[in-house]
Amino acid sequence: MKENKEEFVKEITNIEEDFAKWYTDIVRKADLADYTDVKGFIAIKPYGYAIWENIQKVADEKFKETGVTNLYMPLLIPESMLNKEKDHVEGFAPEVAWVTKGGEEDLEEKLCIRPTSETIMSTMYSKWVSSWRDLPILGNQWCSVLRWEKETRPFLRSREFLWQEGHTIHETAEEAKERTLTMLNIYADIIENYLAIPVLKGQKTLKEQFAGADATYTVETLMHDGRALQAGTSHYFGQNFTKPFDIKFQNREGKEEYAYQTSWGISTRLIGGIIMAHGDNRGLKLPPKIAPTQVIIIPIAMQKDGVIEKNEELYNRLKKNFRVEIDKRDNCSPGYKFNDAEMRGIPVRIEMGPRDIENGKAILVRRDTLEKEEVLLDNIEDRLNELLDEIQQNMYNECLKRREEKTTVAYSLDEILKNLNENQGYVKTMWCGDRACEDKVKEYTGAPSRCIPFDQEKLSDTCAICGKKAEKMVVWGRQY
Amino acid sequence: MKENKEEFVKEITNIEEDFAKWYTDIVRKADLADYTDVKGFIAIKPYGYAIWENIQKVADEKFKETGVTNLYMPLLIPESMLNKEKDHVEGFAPEVAWVTKGGEEDLEEKLCIRPTSETIMSTMYSKWVSSWRDLPILGNQWCSVLRWEKETRPFLRSREFLWQEGHTIHETAEEAKERTLTMLNIYADIIENYLAIPVLKGQKTLKEQFAGADATYTVETLMHDGRALQAGTSHYFGQNFTKPFDIKFQNREGKEEYAYQTSWGISTRLIGGIIMAHGDNRGLKLPPKIAPTQVIIIPIAMQKDGVIEKNEELYNRLKKNFRVEIDKRDNCSPGYKFNDAEMRGIPVRIEMGPRDIENGKAILVRRDTLEKEEVLLDNIEDRLNELLDEIQQNMYNECLKRREEKTTVAYSLDEILKNLNENQGYVKTMWCGDRACEDKVKEYTGAPSRCIPFDQEKLSDTCAICGKKAEKMVVWGRQY
Repeated sequence: MKENKEEFVKEITNIEEDFAKWYTDIVRKADLADYTDVKGFIAIKPYGYAIWENIQKVADEKFKETGVTNLYMPLLIPESMLNKEKDHVEGFAPEVAWVTKGGEEDLEEKLCIRPTSETIMSTMYSKWVSSWRDLPILGNQWCSVLRWEKETRPFLRSREFLWQEGHTIHETAEEAKERTLTMLNIYADIIENYLAIPVLKGQKTLKEQFAGADATYTVETLMHDGRALQAGTSHYFGQNFTKPFDIKFQNREGKEEYAYQTSWGISTRLIGGIIMAHGDNRGLKLPPKIAPTQVIIIPIAMQKDGVIEKNEELYNRLKKNFRVEIDKRDNCSPGYKFNDAEMRGIPVRIEMGPRDIENGKAILVRRDTLEKEEVLLDNIEDRLNELLDEIQQNMYNECLKRREEKTTVAYSLDEILKNLNENQGYVKTMWCGDRACEDKVKEYTGAPSRCIPFDQEKLSDTCAICGKKAEKMVVWGRQY
Repeated sequence: MKENKEEFVKEITNIEEDFAKWYTDIVRKADLADYTDVKGFIAIKPYGYAIWENIQKVADEKFKETGVTNLYMPLLIPESMLNKEKDHVEGFAPEVAWVTKGGEEDLEEKLCIRPTSETIMSTMYSKWVSSWRDLPILGNQWCSVLRWEKETRPFLRSREFLWQEGHTIHETAEEAKERTLTMLNIYADIIENYLAIPVLKGQKTLKEQFAGADATYTVETLMHDGRALQAGTSHYFGQNFTKPFDIKFQNREGKEEYAYQTSWGISTRLIGGIIMAHGDNRGLKLPPKIAPTQVIIIPIAMQKDGVIEKNEELYNRLKKNFRVEIDKRDNCSPGYKFNDAEMRGIPVRIEMGPRDIENGKAILVRRDTLEKEEVLLDNIEDRLNELLDEIQQNMYNECLKRREEKTTVAYSLDEILKNLNENQGYVKTMWCGDRACEDKVKEYTGAPSRCIPFDQEKLSDTCAICGKKAEKMVVWGRQY
């Protein structure tokens, strides 16, 4: 059960040979999460949780700038409440956990642990809304949800995960639609500018949209192996929930009408995305903006006079401006510490030994390219700031380059399959819009549609699957 | 179901006549929380949640300054895991909710929703600890927990509540005990200096301590009606969990031994404490340091030329340094807005109408004393800063004064009862330490022991209940 510390940084599975096994190696060896004795549930360890906290902090601020306020709704939802919206219950009922006993008593009505909170939010909102003056309601909660998945994988598909779920109520359809896109754009901003992963923005097809939605918008990302990861979604519900849940208001003309609704979420799945978009054979690679530790100081020849002191001095100095760590362990070598810091994906490491100290210098090594450079201690803050920016930008560029390399165009079902088998990645085709064609692609290639991108291209006039007239370009891709 | 907005600030139950009803009036009319269709569960509304966020922010920073890191453990705990520590399961099993079905399948082993996480934390820690070098582990999680209470009251006793639970593992008993007290002192700091409520620090008696603990320390607070509220607890477990959960480590001498453990928590119950410690017949009264809105601007004669503009100008100016709100509603009077702001406990309101604008002045009204003063707009930031500090201090002083008035000494069982019936409050007595005497007080007066205060006084040589030799002073008090 216990890890042998010296084994800890030993070779991990090669990323090109077995990506799935590489992934779980990283999750455990970079100390992000651990398996538990509760099947399908993980424990998020402090280092993994700190990444989530940094994502939360950025997201929460951006939400609040647009007027969103946080709140908290019950964990448990009565069966009859879950059943109120037909599509929604069909989508979620098969995968919820049921509470049937509370204390010593058997419950009269069973309660499910929230898989998502549209039903309970809508129930409460219907009590809180009576006039257009009460609108909009822009609620959000940070919480855990449960979905009884059959196959699980840490962060990507777990029976429990942490997320935020925003639920808003509006006077008009237009305002609700605008909110849906505002939130999608915030997600794109976070994922591109903080997580350093380019996104593909678009609308989900009817088949792939959220259970109960009128429209689902998505930010799609591409992983190292070319598979896609749905990184965040934003749903426009129209009045699908406000009608069964009776969310009515008196409008500006004094008439009663049903309100318009949205919901939107991102989750700890993003941590899986960071691992799979950026990691390599040395381990995790964290974008500086959300790395719990941006800079690690590793003293060289620690036993020599004054080395520890000078390194600590540097640590205390950098602490003011950076998230910095110092590795003073006396039971492992600098080489082991380098490997450990690389495994944990720390963007920059500083090495400083007796000769560097004498010269008033230190060595900086960046995690993304492994390039080394000498820096004068006098200038170290400025250089670190530049370097962290460069790393952030370079990590984004690398992902973008890969996405470009792995994005292809196809004009037939066979070509979709061929491209996916060669490349994985995104395959763009024209599509007639029929569910039958979409089902065929899924069945034949294993790839669902990712989305109908906002940025449309006219590749041809006909559907790549059935040959009928087609006006929409859709993107296909196998997924996590 | 819908609130009529004009009814909203109408009279609430008189605080002296029916404190319990006054309390629930405030919870709803100050927009803190609402009842839900899930029995015993509340919805925390944005205004109530914002108070919790401010408490979280302060607490999380203080925890982290002492080396604590956040993590996240599964929501569900298998029955066999809960059963591992005898006292613990006896304490909690009768009040947990059980999941017996996941998706379509009946579970082989039922899983409880965490009532607290000692068992799952200990299970994981046992995997993570092998050497003294792995210690201490200073984990904490912010989450919701469930306890199937029979009688519930918003924030004070709810089937679900939000809290933080810290769980730490140490090399030595001394270090663990020190941690227990460090956290208790942080709680005292938060409650006294941010929530403006004086605390009584001490150790719980054996009877009142946490199920599975060797020692439970507590911060006790006194409410408006003289009843006590246990505001936070910190537990020293010794090896009670590390033995059954096999948390062993190789010590500095190379020998294997069981580690030492603590846990500690505060919860959304503190919001109940704030309401009941500070509120009055006009509503909630929030301490400036944790008030979501510290200052509210209410324009007077809004329809007059330039009034809205000048008030907005002031709002934009104050926004830089204060949590400020402006009430520009055009469908209610200033009088209504004053009441509303008082109901929501906003520490300072600013009134500014045409004549004030002409004179370069504004009116400040403090919520705690309702005193008014004029201030020159040029000096308004400085005066607000002073005023918020004065309010914070005054609210603390008022609570302290009440506590002093309601703290009495008793030398017999009858006197304990008499004091409680007159005064509620804290009753100090000498106590022999026998459980039988403690049971007798509870039965005869309805008051459990609050704690054995750290600050001991020698009131006499004999137990107030049995007359035998007594060395400890204990404090009794009826509670929430």
